[in-house]
Amino acid sequence: MCPIMGNFKGHALPGTFFLILGIWWTTKCILKYAFKKHKRTSYLDSKVLFHRVEILEGIIIAGMALTGMLGEQFIPGGPHLTLYDYKEGQWVQLPGWQHFTMYFFFGLLGVTNILCSTIRSLPASFTKLMLANALFVEGFVFYNHTHGREMLDIFVHKLLVLVIFLTGLIAFLELFILTNVTVELLRISFFLLQGSWFWQIGFVLYPPSGGPAWDSVDHDNVMFLTICFCWHYAIAIIIIGAIYAFVTWLVKSRFKRFCPSEVGLLKNAEREQESEEEM
Amino acid sequence: MCPIMGNFKGHALPGTFFLILGIWWTTKCILKYAFKKHKRTSYLDSKVLFHRVEILEGIIIAGMALTGMLGEQFIPGGPHLTLYDYKEGQWVQLPGWQHFTMYFFFGLLGVTNILCSTIRSLPASFTKLMLANALFVEGFVFYNHTHGREMLDIFVHKLLVLVIFLTGLIAFLELFILTNVTVELLRISFFLLQGSWFWQIGFVLYPPSGGPAWDSVDHDNVMFLTICFCWHYAIAIIIIGAIYAFVTWLVKSRFKRFCPSEVGLLKNAEREQESEEEM
Amino acid sequence: MCPIMGNFKGHALPGTFFLILGIWWTTKCILKYAFKKHKRTSYLDSKVLFHRVEILEGIIIAGMALTGMLGEQFIPGGPHLTLYDYKEGQWVQLPGWQHFTMYFFFGLLGVTNILCSTIRSLPASFTKLMLANALFVEGFVFYNHTHGREMLDIFVHKLLVLVIFLTGLIAFLELFILTNVTVELLRISFFLLQGSWFWQIGFVLYPPSGGPAWDSVDHDNVMFLTICFCWHYAIAIIIIGAIYAFVTWLVKSRFKRFCPSEVGLLKNAEREQESEEEM
Amino acid sequence: MCPIMGNFKGHALPGTFFLILGIWWTTKCILKYAFKKHKRTSYLDSKVLFHRVEILEGIIIAGMALTGMLGEQFIPGGPHLTLYDYKEGQWVQLPGWQHFTMYFFFGLLGVTNILCSTIRSLPASFTKLMLANALFVEGFVFYNHTHGREMLDIFVHKLLVLVIFLTGLIAFLELFILTNVTVELLRISFFLLQGSWFWQIGFVLYPPSGGPAWDSVDHDNVMFLTICFCWHYAIAIIIIGAIYAFVTWLVKSRFKRFCPSEVGLLKNAEREQESEEEM
Repeated sequence: MCPIMGNFKGHALPGTFFLILGIWWTTKCILKYAFKKHKRTSYLDSKVLFHRVEILEGIIIAGMALTGMLGEQFIPGGPHLTLYDYKEGQWVQLPGWQHFTMYFFFGLLGVTNILCSTIRSLPASFTKLMLANALFVEGFVFYNHTHGREMLDIFVHKLLVLVIFLTGLIAFLELFILTNVTVELLRISFFLLQGSWFWQIGFVLYPPSGGPAWDSVDHDNVMFLTICFCWHYAIAIIIIGAIYAFVTWLVKSRFKRFCPSEVGLLKNAEREQESEEEM
Repeated sequence: MCPIMGNFKGHALPGTFFLILGIWWTTKCILKYAFKKHKRTSYLDSKVLFHRVEILEGIIIAGMALTGMLGEQFIPGGPHLTLYDYKEGQWVQLPGWQHFTMYFFFGLLGVTNILCSTIRSLPASFTKLMLANALFVEGFVFYNHTHGREMLDIFVHKLLVLVIFLTGLIAFLELFILTNVTVELLRISFFLLQGSWFWQIGFVLYPPSGGPAWDSVDHDNVMFLTICFCWHYAIAIIIIGAIYAFVTWLVKSRFKRFCPSEVGLLKNAEREQESEEEM
Repeated sequence: MCPIMGNFKGHALPGTFFLILGIWWTTKCILKYAFKKHKRTSYLDSKVLFHRVEILEGIIIAGMALTGMLGEQFIPGGPHLTLYDYKEGQWVQLPGWQHFTMYFFFGLLGVTNILCSTIRSLPASFTKLMLANALFVEGFVFYNHTHGREMLDIFVHKLLVLVIFLTGLIAFLELFILTNVTVELLRISFFLLQGSWFWQIGFVLYPPSGGPAWDSVDHDNVMFLTICFCWHYAIAIIIIGAIYAFVTWLVKSRFKRFCPSEVGLLKNAEREQESEEEM
Repeated sequence: MCPIMGNFKGHALPGTFFLILGIWWTTKCILKYAFKKHKRTSYLDSKVLFHRVEILEGIIIAGMALTGMLGEQFIPGGPHLTLYDYKEGQWVQLPGWQHFTMYFFFGLLGVTNILCSTIRSLPASFTKLMLANALFVEGFVFYNHTHGREMLDIFVHKLLVLVIFLTGLIAFLELFILTNVTVELLRISFFLLQGSWFWQIGFVLYPPSGGPAWDSVDHDNVMFLTICFCWHYAIAIIIIGAIYAFVTWLVKSRFKRFCPSEVGLLKNAEREQESEEEM
């Protein structure tokens, strides 16, 4: 077993990372959508802002991936960049190298993000392509990851692979067809699901309370985790809904404060609608 | 086994629900299409009508889902909101919780339907997204539902999962591509199929005549149910065809009665066509 | 075994039907494409012609499906519309009913074809929808058709199911996206493949020479049939290519004969291109 | 086993072919994209150039496929166009015929490439269709190729089939939807992966050092090859990135040299961007 990932923290850390990324993308995506709706007012130069934010995002993703790659290699017990032990005639720390590979592709995503934001001649869809690649590689590695484990362990990882592939599939389809906010939020909701499912795996296989892991041959546990997976997704949807409501309210209130007269007439229609909403 | 679903009524009820929903959606979809064709006459403010109807639809779906959720929890023998029995060290009524989860997602669909109809800033495709989600969750739960059952039981549920996933797939694809009436009717035909297949499952596993269930290891039964599934689909298509003919005739006859002079000239072309049709 | 289909003729007949249909559709599709290219000349009222041809096509398909349905029921040894033998307590002639079901869906395709050609208010994509349905039903029935047979028998039917599903998939995708001639020819090439593969199945399982069937456990036979399947497809492509060349040449030569002066100027560019082609 | 393919060279040769093809297509695709961006200057008649290049490409592909087909047939130990040995009552050299079939479909691709470039009335998407066909046939044959082999051998071929099907899938989807440069580069990156994976298979199964093949039942080897596959893909991405940078730089520098005054004003914006890039 890998010394990093094979414990509770090793699952909570990527989980937290994906959750934060997901919440951040939700906010960004809804902000963009709200700004587009209110585009007649240009008091906030949102384009330049988003541009800088993209670069920052790329740097953070690349930085975290680099940290992950170095961490996997140089922690005590890690492979220390050795791939094959010729003395023993066996591979060194393959799970560590697997995680290294996944981090590497997320690093590529970060680098592409930076490059696409700075070099305007690069098509913006390169970022989406690298996202799909990073996800498919992650799913592919996890799919070939569970050899010889027990039923429950395999099942929770299968569900993880399912959500990763679904996310990758949507990112892949977005390459072909013009993106709309609904599809983007769907993709992000799967990101949140992946994040919280990492936490769930940690709780199932390495309970932080120090108790024993769940009974890995009891089929009732599998049935419960099936339901639990759906609940995680329901929570992801509710989080996105809450962020949607909050961001939309924030943007509206700021627009009203800054330029009440200019937009006033057009806002009447929306106010009626809001009063309808309160009913 | 779950105390609600594990009998004939437990399959006939959701079946009836899906059948009614399917027939209603067929009517709505064809009405919209017919109105769009006759859009030059605006004597019926169809937009406002459809708007109110959508809200009503959302309320009914949400209400039925809530009833289902409460029913699953508080019937005698239900889980009564307890998830884990710490005394016995086992999960409480997992099938009940599974059905609860499915109802919950259909409830989310209802709520989204209401919100998208009342708040105009919300993209209308959110409803379709929640429909796809509700269907995929339903399919996912049913897929992990049949552990340890017998061949025939598994087979009929597999076909159910097949039709649920197909419906979800179409709803998912509709997120990416502009919907046309053909795709919408295809999706609805799968809804009707799902509804009538629930009835078929009830007849196969819990014959209402009180006789024994079908022989669950006889392969001939599997072969018959394969054909039977296709026949259900054929009936769904024929029902949709009948509704199509009826609604189109109704819209045409009402248009003629209300505004015969205005549309008269344009109708000549159609009359020729109708006479051609009668040949 | 079914009394009709379980011999060489039972496979050669549908094979011939699909081959004729495929060749006819190839011709129609390429004719339409060639006419669209030459649309500036309207000496041939192609629209009306194609319209009548569609109706004829629908009548032929519906007629052949009806013949097939009646044939399956009333041949000696057929089910004669009895589904369940209550005396013996078993299903009557299920393979016969399976073929009946397939023919029924192709009958629906024919009827839809006629209706969509005569009633202009019906969306033209209904025909494509019914084609996809007929193919998916055919594939679904064949998929559940091979229980308890031998390896080679299962393998050749698997390949049949593969090509049927691929054809259905393309017809399904055509519902969503505007069709172009390439996609249409791809779908038709799979039709030709299906037709010739029916013949191949007949030769493998019921050699018309009267000799024994092929050794059904020799893996070399499976390997050869894998290659053979590709060759059938290559032949389908070559047939389509030949029809393409012939039809294009025919249309060009007729255009030249009928209206040499009118099109003359525009033709020069094409002639240059042709001389380039001869090089 | 096939006398040609069953050694290191037999895998290195197609690998090299795919690598060269992939690198060439990358260059062509990026050149086209760069030229489109700079289309205001027409000093280089790029259309005519690309047209001739396409014909050359088709001739080379068809020529290599023909060489492969003849080579498979007439090398010592090859089938010499005999398919069935009636004396022995067995098929002759089926693997050789399998490779022959694959080459044949790539030959069809080459011929279509030539025809579509010379005859303007042919839709350009025919080339893409034949590419998808060639890839699906290749994947289909390889999928049915590994019967009775050992675990590691099957696993490396499964990965090969995976990448071939992915490439074919993208080519297939490109038939339906307008291609952009991102999707095209994605498809080409899979071509490079296929090429380098052929080399990897050669190294794993027939080590050129003359040592023994890898232990085919050690699961660690499977785990390593999983990672290795991802690394190959990472290298393919990096190669494409390097070609992208080089070609873009080349086109820019040539544009500057040939017409510095004309483009000067418009270039300022790009220079700013480049200085941003250097930061």
